[in-house]
Amino acid sequence: MRPDGRERDQLRSVRLELGYSRWAEGSCLIEAGNTRVLVTATVEDKVPPFVRGTGQGWIQAEYAMLPRATHERTHRESVRGRQQGRSVEIQRLIGRSLRASLYLERLGEKSIILDCDVLQADGGTRTAAITAGFMALWQALDVINQKARFEKPPIRGQVAAVSVGLKNGQVLLDLSYEEDVDIDVDFNLVRLSSGEWVEIQGTGEHRSFSNQQLSQVLALGADGLDTLNRLQRDAFPKGAGLIER
Amino acid sequence: MRPDGRERDQLRSVRLELGYSRWAEGSCLIEAGNTRVLVTATVEDKVPPFVRGTGQGWIQAEYAMLPRATHERTHRESVRGRQQGRSVEIQRLIGRSLRASLYLERLGEKSIILDCDVLQADGGTRTAAITAGFMALWQALDVINQKARFEKPPIRGQVAAVSVGLKNGQVLLDLSYEEDVDIDVDFNLVRLSSGEWVEIQGTGEHRSFSNQQLSQVLALGADGLDTLNRLQRDAFPKGAGLIER
Amino acid sequence: MRPDGRERDQLRSVRLELGYSRWAEGSCLIEAGNTRVLVTATVEDKVPPFVRGTGQGWIQAEYAMLPRATHERTHRESVRGRQQGRSVEIQRLIGRSLRASLYLERLGEKSIILDCDVLQADGGTRTAAITAGFMALWQALDVINQKARFEKPPIRGQVAAVSVGLKNGQVLLDLSYEEDVDIDVDFNLVRLSSGEWVEIQGTGEHRSFSNQQLSQVLALGADGLDTLNRLQRDAFPKGAGLIER
Amino acid sequence: MRPDGRERDQLRSVRLELGYSRWAEGSCLIEAGNTRVLVTATVEDKVPPFVRGTGQGWIQAEYAMLPRATHERTHRESVRGRQQGRSVEIQRLIGRSLRASLYLERLGEKSIILDCDVLQADGGTRTAAITAGFMALWQALDVINQKARFEKPPIRGQVAAVSVGLKNGQVLLDLSYEEDVDIDVDFNLVRLSSGEWVEIQGTGEHRSFSNQQLSQVLALGADGLDTLNRLQRDAFPKGAGLIER
Amino acid sequence: MRPDGRERDQLRSVRLELGYSRWAEGSCLIEAGNTRVLVTATVEDKVPPFVRGTGQGWIQAEYAMLPRATHERTHRESVRGRQQGRSVEIQRLIGRSLRASLYLERLGEKSIILDCDVLQADGGTRTAAITAGFMALWQALDVINQKARFEKPPIRGQVAAVSVGLKNGQVLLDLSYEEDVDIDVDFNLVRLSSGEWVEIQGTGEHRSFSNQQLSQVLALGADGLDTLNRLQRDAFPKGAGLIER
Amino acid sequence: MRPDGRERDQLRSVRLELGYSRWAEGSCLIEAGNTRVLVTATVEDKVPPFVRGTGQGWIQAEYAMLPRATHERTHRESVRGRQQGRSVEIQRLIGRSLRASLYLERLGEKSIILDCDVLQADGGTRTAAITAGFMALWQALDVINQKARFEKPPIRGQVAAVSVGLKNGQVLLDLSYEEDVDIDVDFNLVRLSSGEWVEIQGTGEHRSFSNQQLSQVLALGADGLDTLNRLQRDAFPKGAGLIER
Repeated sequence: MRPDGRERDQLRSVRLELGYSRWAEGSCLIEAGNTRVLVTATVEDKVPPFVRGTGQGWIQAEYAMLPRATHERTHRESVRGRQQGRSVEIQRLIGRSLRASLYLERLGEKSIILDCDVLQADGGTRTAAITAGFMALWQALDVINQKARFEKPPIRGQVAAVSVGLKNGQVLLDLSYEEDVDIDVDFNLVRLSSGEWVEIQGTGEHRSFSNQQLSQVLALGADGLDTLNRLQRDAFPKGAGLIER
Repeated sequence: MRPDGRERDQLRSVRLELGYSRWAEGSCLIEAGNTRVLVTATVEDKVPPFVRGTGQGWIQAEYAMLPRATHERTHRESVRGRQQGRSVEIQRLIGRSLRASLYLERLGEKSIILDCDVLQADGGTRTAAITAGFMALWQALDVINQKARFEKPPIRGQVAAVSVGLKNGQVLLDLSYEEDVDIDVDFNLVRLSSGEWVEIQGTGEHRSFSNQQLSQVLALGADGLDTLNRLQRDAFPKGAGLIER
Repeated sequence: MRPDGRERDQLRSVRLELGYSRWAEGSCLIEAGNTRVLVTATVEDKVPPFVRGTGQGWIQAEYAMLPRATHERTHRESVRGRQQGRSVEIQRLIGRSLRASLYLERLGEKSIILDCDVLQADGGTRTAAITAGFMALWQALDVINQKARFEKPPIRGQVAAVSVGLKNGQVLLDLSYEEDVDIDVDFNLVRLSSGEWVEIQGTGEHRSFSNQQLSQVLALGADGLDTLNRLQRDAFPKGAGLIER
Repeated sequence: MRPDGRERDQLRSVRLELGYSRWAEGSCLIEAGNTRVLVTATVEDKVPPFVRGTGQGWIQAEYAMLPRATHERTHRESVRGRQQGRSVEIQRLIGRSLRASLYLERLGEKSIILDCDVLQADGGTRTAAITAGFMALWQALDVINQKARFEKPPIRGQVAAVSVGLKNGQVLLDLSYEEDVDIDVDFNLVRLSSGEWVEIQGTGEHRSFSNQQLSQVLALGADGLDTLNRLQRDAFPKGAGLIER
Repeated sequence: MRPDGRERDQLRSVRLELGYSRWAEGSCLIEAGNTRVLVTATVEDKVPPFVRGTGQGWIQAEYAMLPRATHERTHRESVRGRQQGRSVEIQRLIGRSLRASLYLERLGEKSIILDCDVLQADGGTRTAAITAGFMALWQALDVINQKARFEKPPIRGQVAAVSVGLKNGQVLLDLSYEEDVDIDVDFNLVRLSSGEWVEIQGTGEHRSFSNQQLSQVLALGADGLDTLNRLQRDAFPKGAGLIER
Repeated sequence: MRPDGRERDQLRSVRLELGYSRWAEGSCLIEAGNTRVLVTATVEDKVPPFVRGTGQGWIQAEYAMLPRATHERTHRESVRGRQQGRSVEIQRLIGRSLRASLYLERLGEKSIILDCDVLQADGGTRTAAITAGFMALWQALDVINQKARFEKPPIRGQVAAVSVGLKNGQVLLDLSYEEDVDIDVDFNLVRLSSGEWVEIQGTGEHRSFSNQQLSQVLALGADGLDTLNRLQRDAFPKGAGLIER
């Protein structure tokens, strides 16, 4: 039995509020259990130097937690004068994951910046940020499309992410913070709606894992991701035309 | 006629959601028109060096905007490696204002840190942060009081804040961003519920102002602050015992 | 009786040394009692991005204290790697105050940077910096005028600043450090020579204040500012033609 | 055919020089093809705050590249004033991987800091750092053991790491930089000598991957890791007694 | 003929104003031609970690220029967030030079911090800072001595410094900025009043120099230093008892 | 007798490995006793702003130590967020010394950046960096020359550097760390192969020195530098044509 009474294979209740933010081209507030992440998408007509001249677009993510998103307050990164290593690692994952959802060459030389700010943390903030980040990105692409229609759908597939844990040989879907702190092995799985993986990160800092356990993890994660993909589609059905079939 | 149809002396609609944050000792999400600020209060059992040993408590504020709280995205301060001058100036104002609401010696050697994060900005974020900051502080004091009852009420009076502007000789209450950008003179008024002022900042960067205009500004501001004080009491009636009568 | 024997309404003795600095376009060393601030004005033929293309000029201030300007040595800000919040807040006030003294559109697309460095601090450094800053600015405008005569006088009026305090119901002009540390309410008043206010900052961190007290403060401050304006004119009579009448 | 003539399943030639550094408790210079990484291990008799009092030890890694380790010079991180996101992400991976190689509770409250400095980069620097990092750690544990014999072997198993790539459906072992830049999917695999995984990171930024491809990747990686584990044992046979059997 | 009409072997006119600063334990404003440097000495009852427990004292210097001390304004180091390399190099030289003037073991475990701030620069700011720094140090030692008399004189000898240049084979004493910018070889000479050298830095960035030229430089410098030592003694005759004979 | 058995006038054994680095235009690994420094030279087709438009080239050095190059680990400068003062001072010396070896106007508007990274420190790292830096620079000039032949040889002369110490009246060549820590006076001597000095830095922090001692130091240093110049020529005979005769 899990601390919050869920089954092993049960997601926390997820709510996606598209367009939470008035000024941003795209935005989504995700609530997954007690985890709340606000993602905004900003469209800019320029790309970083290493992309310039390639005709491709770019997606970049920034991730931060409000100081009291957590049980204990953490120092504000701007006051410390630098981002924590954990934030840097997470925002790189988010950026890679969402770049994988697009045909960057169909976007043209535009950047979309995804600001992922954790209002309240209870485990799974990075996966929530990816799932909501796709929504904010989708909405921003819709805004671009309304001004100048894309020749071909810019989206390769919906991207969503979920965590899976191994604890005493048991496989658990969508870990809360309480579960996460003493998990044996922790996976973050990022997948396209086609069923193909975009990123798999499995970390056995406290215990290692076998090929067989990995298979169980992927199977359980895939179920959760199917659900998340459906919730995404329900939240923004009018964006469907932007996805390549 | 004002851009959003309000009267000269009309506040924007204000909503105070006490306890928005699950982990913080106190919290309040304020929505004032399109401005949304989340304030959390964190209680710590230590005080800064310059207070240590005095038997007094301390209140400190930190203020930041999410990068896309505004029409144009601003750089994330943690990525730039430092806070903007504007943020520093504002958080110092918030800290002073809320320290003025307490008898710090009755708090004992505790710190309360107020994190004020602007989720969406449409003018008046610093005054909203003060008004909501008092709520978060009030709730945190209630939490402290439940563990160890204060001998005497720690609160001197409710603190709220409002902006007033001068434009072509007209006095306007509670400026939106659209009004603020080309105002002649801009005031931020911070007051106790007793009617005494805690802080008055009047800035005539584009035009100067006379003693008579100042009087009109203070009168109009006082009306708005009466309303805000009432909304505060409505949102947390059970905290009343913490205020000195 | 005040610690240094002054009357309630008496300024400290003020000395303005125009042109203290050999290389700067404008400069003024102000001594107000034991407070000594050196302000230099640097003219640059470019403006910040947010002004570019408007045809207007810009005035910007930077404020710092030498490490041993104070009783206790403070860490050098460059060694700590950042400015203190207090410095940032003060330099923003100085910048706003001096911008208010000019018709920025008559300056053309030029910047004037005012470096305000406190050699010795004994209270009132920010107001001294504004009063001396106007002198350095005035001299720099004279330098510009000698090269290319302004069509219309670029100065709206002389700007000076003074502090006023409330202590046990008494109103005191021009606080020394010793008085400032346990003042009840502290005002910084910035005014044009016309008698109109540019900035009023009243801070009742330790005690609040009434409308009536505010009136007394403004009246006493106005007297002090009249004196400072006269001293400014005496120190640079040849700059008079640069001021709009 | 691969650019350097290797077979699909062929490692680059690997050389491990144990004890390269005269002062460090442990050190290893690894050369894998043209990639050269120097890892030193420093033993300290203190642990970070979050470990203090637990009786456990801690392993921490820092990773950097010399500015001209690469084809193009990169800015020196100390001159830019901060580490790059990539460095932060990599050093967190190295730290986790090597903590997984130990029974931290058998180490006692000691820290071992692994400094991983890339002298020359040609792909696979993070996996080389892990493989060499285990060697430096092993040697440092031997130094500790000589002073005060461990009651039980502190090492759970040898840790090594290797990269595997997917390109046009083909699986390639141990990517050089030239191969890495346009790979479809890139894996970093970290494993104990027991055959259990410590960390799996698969990143399909440019293309996604299926469960079946993942299986092929893991099988090929396992072969390479067997070889690396053998090279490690050959380079430090006298350390064998420190590993739990 | 030199630009300011001096002879080859002529110092600029030097003025030492001891006790310029009201709060510091020691202070000296030096004017050497148009160069003006304010040095303050702060006494602290603690020493850096590497000295702690040795019974010795420590002298540390910090050097900075006001932004408009120079012909062109330089960025304020605190705003840039770091000291310039030049400042760091200079303050290390000043610290070494003044440590050499003392018997640090006679000082006891105290630090004296010398803040050297250049108000106006016209060449020779580092040598001026050393010459004035000795004065500020001397005065601070006198303050210490008044509270608790030193058993033995803490000063080994007066330290002063001067620059010498080589230009087209000519040797020039005490370079102004105008001379310094296109000098062939530039020397900074630091000496005890005994005639022994404390530091010699000769830099032939644009041209190299021979042993014979070096001898001429040292002879000319020694004459200038004799004069500076005499000016120092004239400015603080009552400190003589602190110097070992 | 010296700790490592050398004679007073004996260099440590020196090894110069030219071309250690595969990607850099020039590189040299120097081993001088236990000191190991890797210097790489990077050629860039741009110069700093203060050189732009002069037709001259520029040489710039950066110096750092690996954290465990020393007996005790030092904090990584990139993690602390800034370079140490010592590093800054040293890299400025290296830059000046190597600029002195060239006719910068014959280089044209190119920069050569010399990255000097200390892999292992045992005294004399700055002088080793200069001696090896000249080698890396020489090789980089050869690379430039192969693409577009220099009209006139760009090198004025070989630059090498050595340390000399004074201890109890004895003069010692090429100090190891053990000797350096309690030396009386420490010299770093930089010389052209012509016999003319480029930079002399003598620091008597613990004891002062006389003119006569200085002469002895220079004579002994000159002998060591002759040897180093010969080793340089032996290591890269084919570069001889680049040096003006």
